[in-house]
Amino acid sequence: MTMTDLKVSFDEVKKAIRDVPDFPHKGIVFKDITPVLQNPRLFRQIIDHLCDRYSTAKIDAVVAIESRGFFFGTAVAEKLELPFIPVRKKGKLPYHTVQASYDLEYGTDTVEMHKDALKEGQRAVIIDDLVATGGTIKAAAQLVEALGAEVVEMAFVIELAFLNPRDLLEGYRVYSMIQYS
Amino acid sequence: MTMTDLKVSFDEVKKAIRDVPDFPHKGIVFKDITPVLQNPRLFRQIIDHLCDRYSTAKIDAVVAIESRGFFFGTAVAEKLELPFIPVRKKGKLPYHTVQASYDLEYGTDTVEMHKDALKEGQRAVIIDDLVATGGTIKAAAQLVEALGAEVVEMAFVIELAFLNPRDLLEGYRVYSMIQYS
Repeated sequence: MTMTDLKVSFDEVKKAIRDVPDFPHKGIVFKDITPVLQNPRLFRQIIDHLCDRYSTAKIDAVVAIESRGFFFGTAVAEKLELPFIPVRKKGKLPYHTVQASYDLEYGTDTVEMHKDALKEGQRAVIIDDLVATGGTIKAAAQLVEALGAEVVEMAFVIELAFLNPRDLLEGYRVYSMIQYS
Repeated sequence: MTMTDLKVSFDEVKKAIRDVPDFPHKGIVFKDITPVLQNPRLFRQIIDHLCDRYSTAKIDAVVAIESRGFFFGTAVAEKLELPFIPVRKKGKLPYHTVQASYDLEYGTDTVEMHKDALKEGQRAVIIDDLVATGGTIKAAAQLVEALGAEVVEMAFVIELAFLNPRDLLEGYRVYSMIQYS
């Protein structure tokens, strides 16, 4: 493992993230990353940072989670010349899939990945914009593992540390650029 | 306008696109682009081609449509150092939005864009993976125009020409890499 946890400043990115109160539900403060996407310098800072982090980590594929994970995952995959693998909500991927479910506040949700997305023994990084409780990313990791591949790391722009996602993700290597505690 | 319609070969991309019969409904042959995303050389060919096409077109922003448009839109925006603007299904964007609806086979659907996504007079290209009837992209164009900005071109990897999307999109400049007639 050649990845380090060298401190890089994401103060400007953090300042650009917009707090939207009461979205999607009353009492929730939503972290809106669209102002970051609108700022090419900040967006590139994030992409370059992730590319630096994984360029020497012997990664075989970049996995990202619908929809906001796609913002970051595709640009990283393109720059690192790696296959890009989407994880999508149930019913969106057309070919044969593996599935994994995770708990929501009420009920469960299911994510899918194509069965031919990864080969046994391949090493994947999973990218999403934000980790809250960690349920979705854990399900995505189970999809990677169902295909016999390995989750080298889970990477997020934003970690809602006050929701303790690392508890649910114990055993996985978790990396985030910006933490809210 | 400096964009040309120079013929570039996308034969390899076309070969990589997978036909999935009866998805999402019986009788529909779905064009699955995930094998293209899994091939870094083909994915880069598409991204580089779009970047070449728009690098001298005085574009102010790249707009892309949820979810598969994000695969291509973010990588193009990053490379051209342009703002990236997502168009999303209703209820997904947290801040103040403009909305536009379009007809489905049964009923209608609505897409949204943040009100502060574009400024009056800005020039935007809209990117999506595929155009079928053109309803979604036309609604996305109406969002761009609702903010006083201009749609310079609509770009697609795949055009289902047999559905005649250019009829609905009359008045817009439409570009596609691969056509099915």
